[in-house]
Formats: sequence, structure tokens, C-alpha cells
Amino acid sequence: MITYDAKIRVRYGETDKMGFLYHAHYVDYYDVARTEALRSVGTSNRELEDRGVMLPVIDVGLKYKQPARYDDLLTVRVRVSPPAIKWRFDYEVYRENGELINTGHVVLGFMNSQTQRACRPPEWFLERLAPYFEETTGVSVR
Amino acid sequence: MITYDAKIRVRYGETDKMGFLYHAHYVDYYDVARTEALRSVGTSNRELEDRGVMLPVIDVGLKYKQPARYDDLLTVRVRVSPPAIKWRFDYEVYRENGELINTGHVVLGFMNSQTQRACRPPEWFLERLAPYFEETTGVSVR
Amino acid sequence: MITYDAKIRVRYGETDKMGFLYHAHYVDYYDVARTEALRSVGTSNRELEDRGVMLPVIDVGLKYKQPARYDDLLTVRVRVSPPAIKWRFDYEVYRENGELINTGHVVLGFMNSQTQRACRPPEWFLERLAPYFEETTGVSVR
Amino acid sequence: MITYDAKIRVRYGETDKMGFLYHAHYVDYYDVARTEALRSVGTSNRELEDRGVMLPVIDVGLKYKQPARYDDLLTVRVRVSPPAIKWRFDYEVYRENGELINTGHVVLGFMNSQTQRACRPPEWFLERLAPYFEETTGVSVR
Repeated sequence: MITYDAKIRVRYGETDKMGFLYHAHYVDYYDVARTEALRSVGTSNRELEDRGVMLPVIDVGLKYKQPARYDDLLTVRVRVSPPAIKWRFDYEVYRENGELINTGHVVLGFMNSQTQRACRPPEWFLERLAPYFEETTGVSVR
Repeated sequence: MITYDAKIRVRYGETDKMGFLYHAHYVDYYDVARTEALRSVGTSNRELEDRGVMLPVIDVGLKYKQPARYDDLLTVRVRVSPPAIKWRFDYEVYRENGELINTGHVVLGFMNSQTQRACRPPEWFLERLAPYFEETTGVSVR
Repeated sequence: MITYDAKIRVRYGETDKMGFLYHAHYVDYYDVARTEALRSVGTSNRELEDRGVMLPVIDVGLKYKQPARYDDLLTVRVRVSPPAIKWRFDYEVYRENGELINTGHVVLGFMNSQTQRACRPPEWFLERLAPYFEETTGVSVR
Repeated sequence: MITYDAKIRVRYGETDKMGFLYHAHYVDYYDVARTEALRSVGTSNRELEDRGVMLPVIDVGLKYKQPARYDDLLTVRVRVSPPAIKWRFDYEVYRENGELINTGHVVLGFMNSQTQRACRPPEWFLERLAPYFEETTGVSVR
């Protein structure tokens, strides 16, 4: 299992007239955390795209418990599941005081960028990530 | 039941480097459709807020079937459920050719904007919407 | 001269904690108005891109006089200058009561999408737009 | 003079179909850099707002020299001028290789949040910042 904690500060333009972080922006934050989690294990969305594989989103869910506000420094924790035909990421968002304010998930597919059709995750990619998903070596990169 | 079809054109800045409508923006589109659906029955988010009630989002889910692209004219169909402690909206997004590309839902709560605590939907609001949810008069405002 | 009035309604997520349309979103609105202005004369950003020409932005300026608020129906008036090496668009944003709240401009360049280098506007494109810039036939498509 | 370098990484959803950081998002980045610059000298937008002063934007300008791309780690350098009736911030955006890709400015006004009318910067605020603008002690907080 790969777990990663990304620190993200709420931007002014991301607030809405209620004074809260607008709910759609949690999806942006999930993306930032995913990017950093992959970087922490030596790969990236960018590398996948450079090698002809895109990761379209197929399923997103979010549950909101408490609002976040301008300038809050949030921790977005992502748990990365092993990539298969689908690739699932689970999220928890915490305030600085440790309070859990949001949970969610994102499921990606793999797509060949030339044919624009669904594909399997490439072998080199599975091999790269395999060590992180072996039962005995599960690594938390927090 | 209230059903409303909002037409929304994909903006350049809403696309991502895959050339697709970035997945978080569907949440923005859901909001636009909800705003227009409420306007079509003679009320609005704005009226609620002016009368001291905010509508924080508590649950969002989205399923993506096909991508949308720059300048696509999408139809965002929203089905409004009767407001209770929670208020649910279901969505379907269609391309111009009628193809269904995305489905989702949003659940709102009611919050007193002074106390910032959850509250029941106000009576005047329930009365305003009641006619649209009577079994025999269900109105589609498409 | 091509002049076009686009109607754009302020979305909830585009407001900030002051309750105003967040200032960066005027740039998004300028883009929407430009897209519609080009459509009104029978061409589009999309057509240019399909034919190998991109339009990177090289200069943007905005002056804010009054704020806009959630659900305001704004008129974004764009004046399109004749395309040359650079292509200039001037903007005025009005409230429904006719009050001018914002002015600005955007200057685009032309770029060959294969070489990713600056280029001249294509001949077919200049010919397409020429009638709109002849002194005697200046057309307002408002 | 206050100068501050903010590091900002380009998010996936901030790219557009050209594969570039969409031009409106530089305005968001300017805001992030301004927030961090003020924090570095012991104050914040938030503190101003908590004490009844809002900072509406009245003028923004941007010049784009080169594009930024997904996952680029940009340096957004902000130079803060002394606050007066208007308050000016100048920006330069650099790639990791040191290349200057964008310059710009933002001018803010001061507004009393109750009356929603323009006001002078509050005395406590001017006093707080004064040391940073004394000729002999000009401090770079890079």
C-alpha cells in the first residue's frame, strides 16, 4: 500500500461566497495529492503520458463533513491501491488540528493516447510499483 | 418531480492537457443546472441566502462514461427531489448527439447562516416547492 | 470591426469569500465572449486548431470598477481587431442595469501547433475575416 | 521593499488543451504569492478581513513570454510596494531552469467591509509594514 500526505493551502479564489472552500476544488486537491504520491514512488502522470498512456477519470465520490476556509493548511491523505484495469485512490482531508473534514475516492482507467481506447496498465509501470504492494513490504511514505 | 435541462458550452480553460473537459468541472456544471432548475420554479439559491439559509454540499458522486471536449454544447439534466433535512439532485450529461457521457448526484444540507448549524428547510420554501412534488401534478419544465 | 455581446451568468463557484466574482474569472469570461464572437462570423478557435494553428495568449489587462455577484447576468462585449502577427480583443463588462463594471484586453499570437513556433495568421483565415474589417461594411453582430 | 519567492507546482486541471498552464491561472498564482509574502512579514489578508478591511482588485496586467506545463515547479516572485490608497504588487514567474516566462502586476484597493466603500489602509497595518519599507532596512525575505 502507498500512503501519502500532501499539504495544500486553501487559495483565496478557491473560496465561495459562503467563505468556504468551494466543494469542486476538493477534486483538484485529490489530483495534487495523487501527483505527489506517484512522485514519492519514482513515477508520475507525466511519465505515463510521455510513454503513451493517459489516465481518464471514471468515478469520483466525495463526502463533506466540515468546511475548510481561506488560508487553511489542509492535509490530503491518499491511499493508492494496486493498479489494475481500474486504479483506485482513497482520500481523507484533515484540518491542521487533525479534524477529518472530507473523505472521497477517485477511480482512473488506463487509455492508449493514440487509439484513445481503454488499455491495461503497461508492464513497466506494474513492475515499478510492485514493490510497494508486496504484503510484507507495504511502505508508508508519509 | 422537477426536471430541468441546462445547456452549457465547454470553455477553453475548462479543458485539460488530454483535450477533455477536466473532471472537476462537471461539479461546476451541476451547480449551474441546479441554479437554473430552481429559477424555473420561481426561487433561487440567492433567495435562500438572502433569507438566512445556506446550502452546504454534503455528498457528491460522479461517473464518467465518455469525455467532453472544448466547445461541446452539453445538456445537463437535473432531477430535483423534494427537500427534506437533506436535498438530493440527480444529474445526467448529454452530448449534442444525445449520447449520455456522465451521471452524478449532489446532496445538500440546510444551514442557518447566522448560527452556521444544520437546520430544517424553511416552511415558506417547502410551500413554494410543494406543488411541483404533488403526485398528480408532477411538472417537467424542460 | 466585429463586435459581439455575450451573456454570461456568474456561477456560485466563481464567487469568492467577499461574495464577488473572483477577479481571475473575468479572463475566463473574455474567452467565452471571444469564442462566441468568432462563431458569429463563421469560424472558431476549434477550426484553427484543427487546421494546425494555436492561439497562445501574450498579453492580458483588466480594470475593475465595480464587483459582480452570484447569479448576475453580465454582458461581456468584445471588439475584435483585424488579425495580424498579433490579434487584439477589447472588452467591456456590463451589469444588467447597463452599468460598466470592468474593461480589459487580450492579445493573442499565432503559433504553428507542430513546430510550436510563432507564425503568421493563415491566408484562409484572413480571407474569411476580411469582409468584417472592410471600412464600409463594418458589421456589428450584436 | 518586500520581495518573496513562492514555489507553485502546475496542477493537472490548470492545464488547457494546448498542454499549457491556462493563462487565467497566473492570476491565481499571483494571489498565492501575495498571501505568502504577507505571511512572511507577519500579517495576512485574513487578518485584514478579520479586522474589517477587504482588498478588492482594481487593476491586473500580465505578459506571457513562454508557456508553463503540467507539473512544472514555478517560482512566482512578488515585489510588494508600500500600501497607500492603492497597493501595488509586481510579479515575475520563472521556470526551474531560471527562465523568465511571465511578468505582471496587481493593484488592490482598501475597502471597509461594512460600508463596502473605499477606505485608507488602517494605521495598525501601515505601522506593521513600515519597517520593511524604510530605505536603509529594505529586507528581502527570499
